[in-house]
Amino acid sequence: MKQIKIGLLGFGTIGAGVVKLLKENSSLISEKTGAQLSLKTIADLDITTDRGVSTDGIKLTTNADEVLSDPEISVVIELIGGYEPARTFALKAIANGKHVVTANKALLAVHGQEIYAAAKASGVEVLFEAAVGGGIPVLSAIKGNMAANRFSTVLGIVNGTCNYILTRMTQEGADFTEVLKSAQEFGYAEADPTFDIEGVDTAHKLCLLLSLCFGTKVDLKDIYCEGITSVSAEDVDFAKSFGYRIKLLAIGKMDDGQIEARVHPTMIPSDYPLADVHGVFNAIRLTGDFVGPVMFYGRGAGMDATASAVIGDVVDLCRNMGAGISRRCAPLGYVDEKVGTLAIKPMGEIVSKYYIRFQAFDRPGVLARIAGSLGAHGISIASMVQSARSTDIVPIVIMTHEAREEDIRTALGEIDAFDVIRAKSTFIRIEDNLE
Amino acid sequence: MKQIKIGLLGFGTIGAGVVKLLKENSSLISEKTGAQLSLKTIADLDITTDRGVSTDGIKLTTNADEVLSDPEISVVIELIGGYEPARTFALKAIANGKHVVTANKALLAVHGQEIYAAAKASGVEVLFEAAVGGGIPVLSAIKGNMAANRFSTVLGIVNGTCNYILTRMTQEGADFTEVLKSAQEFGYAEADPTFDIEGVDTAHKLCLLLSLCFGTKVDLKDIYCEGITSVSAEDVDFAKSFGYRIKLLAIGKMDDGQIEARVHPTMIPSDYPLADVHGVFNAIRLTGDFVGPVMFYGRGAGMDATASAVIGDVVDLCRNMGAGISRRCAPLGYVDEKVGTLAIKPMGEIVSKYYIRFQAFDRPGVLARIAGSLGAHGISIASMVQSARSTDIVPIVIMTHEAREEDIRTALGEIDAFDVIRAKSTFIRIEDNLE
Repeated sequence: MKQIKIGLLGFGTIGAGVVKLLKENSSLISEKTGAQLSLKTIADLDITTDRGVSTDGIKLTTNADEVLSDPEISVVIELIGGYEPARTFALKAIANGKHVVTANKALLAVHGQEIYAAAKASGVEVLFEAAVGGGIPVLSAIKGNMAANRFSTVLGIVNGTCNYILTRMTQEGADFTEVLKSAQEFGYAEADPTFDIEGVDTAHKLCLLLSLCFGTKVDLKDIYCEGITSVSAEDVDFAKSFGYRIKLLAIGKMDDGQIEARVHPTMIPSDYPLADVHGVFNAIRLTGDFVGPVMFYGRGAGMDATASAVIGDVVDLCRNMGAGISRRCAPLGYVDEKVGTLAIKPMGEIVSKYYIRFQAFDRPGVLARIAGSLGAHGISIASMVQSARSTDIVPIVIMTHEAREEDIRTALGEIDAFDVIRAKSTFIRIEDNLE
Repeated sequence: MKQIKIGLLGFGTIGAGVVKLLKENSSLISEKTGAQLSLKTIADLDITTDRGVSTDGIKLTTNADEVLSDPEISVVIELIGGYEPARTFALKAIANGKHVVTANKALLAVHGQEIYAAAKASGVEVLFEAAVGGGIPVLSAIKGNMAANRFSTVLGIVNGTCNYILTRMTQEGADFTEVLKSAQEFGYAEADPTFDIEGVDTAHKLCLLLSLCFGTKVDLKDIYCEGITSVSAEDVDFAKSFGYRIKLLAIGKMDDGQIEARVHPTMIPSDYPLADVHGVFNAIRLTGDFVGPVMFYGRGAGMDATASAVIGDVVDLCRNMGAGISRRCAPLGYVDEKVGTLAIKPMGEIVSKYYIRFQAFDRPGVLARIAGSLGAHGISIASMVQSARSTDIVPIVIMTHEAREEDIRTALGEIDAFDVIRAKSTFIRIEDNLE
């Protein structure tokens, strides 16, 4: 039986999952690939802490070179995360003729092109199913069985921390800050949750989804990125009353040769399957011209689920190595020279429906002035609610028909300067017209 | 660019979808595979009817041999359906060294082993993503990125006709017979709907899911199969009042080395994502030991969605042919000699919760006698409802805790013989304890 030796860089939570999976399911993987996997070496700065998994027979080292320069190792699993030294190590593994499997969305969103080009030059593969949606095999499906489709839309709930927080805000009517605090206590949010709650992690994942769906390079800086820190309990409550739920979505759309690429809190109808994705679960919904809408749902994080995707990629490599080939499919699913650079649509030009919440003083004529200003900018109102409040300040909520983002921003700038407006108005985009 | 010539057997709805897809998206497929696909020949007994798609440049013939014996054709797409002549044609294509892509679940559920063995002997591939869940790429995911998992459960809503009927019964409180009639008028049910409504089509698909999930041959006769014809508006209504919906599920479970393999109407909690799969949509939910629960959702039928899966398989073949290899992965995702024959658990031994509806005369002591008989057979009652009705006959509904099917059947046989029981009692199994 063909022996395939693996080296692991990074022995954190997912690394421990990989060790556990290889220990428990190696014989199953042999039944499916005809190959015998063995994890030869793990490199991590900390090789003494007990990760709760047996490392019998595995060499532990603090020196990554013992993985990167070992001629016996043909597959390097990179689970360090972040940009450096992950980038340097990945490039060195590739230069040394090793295939690379990674869960590192940050690395690929920023240095993907450099890494893919190096892999091409070396004739090795770079696989990264675990980088988006944890255990959900969505990238493989886009590159694989759904490859005959032109995709028009991809929507993803791909950050478990944000979805956990928004789910609890929805279920408990609680405030962002208090839920975040309890999420940190329960381990559902990092001590420094910035990357998650500001939408950066979601933007990294959207970057990869866009590249695979549309065969394009994407500059991370072009992705509009708005996190969930300004979502209030009040907005969640109003969303409910209009039949919506608020989710942090990664949104990619193909529109006349331009791509919409945006991450922001979004209201979706509560009877959409995506609205029922609760807690730390993830889901990705794609629309292809032939397959129509398809949704994938599962655990977006966690040591076991993510290890499933990592080793799923290793299974793919095993089958190629068993057949004596490499790179039957390029990293993005397109023949390398066909990966283009599509333009990203400027955010001001996107068209959406909007939920807008104004905080106005309770004076006669306020509504007329707001409506007048919106109308002057071509924004048509679908519905309006003015709640009676005990204080002098009333929230006025307006749901618009489709409008251009730039018009919304201009109108809100104008309205916020009115003397009857108490504070900066807020808005949330709505997605309720999915095929 | 590598040229790959395709022959198509069967020019029905899905065949027309394949022709349309290849016409519209061939250049996209070239960008993803580096190969140029061309549909050379279509064989069908009827080559005159207009299918609404252009066949310019494609040879139409009534003689399947012009596909099967054409040395230029390397991929045969079989979309005739049914057992014969599909089996003979598939075997001949294989014998002639052609890869076979099919959407024919009936063929593979019954003659799969013969076809897989022939393909192995000829060194060609048999791919059949379109056979389960239409466009949903679930089989590829089981064989591919989720391959490192031992699966414990697979649940599928995989028949659009049944799901359409049950959805309308749920939404409208309508009767099976009237909804079926209207489904036939709208084209959502065949003129002879037996295969669909009796659960046979679902059993065919379960057969394939079981083989891929558990690496086992399955004799179709061993799958318990109960359709939806006896689901009444009353049951749908009671289900609702208990917080459940009724779905026709394909159920596969691994249980101590034995497999549960059953198709039957099933009550699932209405807040399960599976309960929100409406109309002709399909969904498959799997649980793997590492990936945890994963759900795939999309269009389970239709010319376009099914064509997406068929050509997705062709893309897979293109990539193999481009790399000069074949059979990097065997048809069931396991190395052929590792496909075993697991025992199917006898239906009497399965353990489930049950919904039971009795039709009793409104006499004192009826409930006590029913409860006594259930208790004597070790069946514990979770809840009970006795509706007040205007007639002398009352429905008594009992939800049980987990019980053995054989005990349920024995107890019901006993109870149905009581003089206070008006008609044969009915029961529906419940799945509400999913991880």
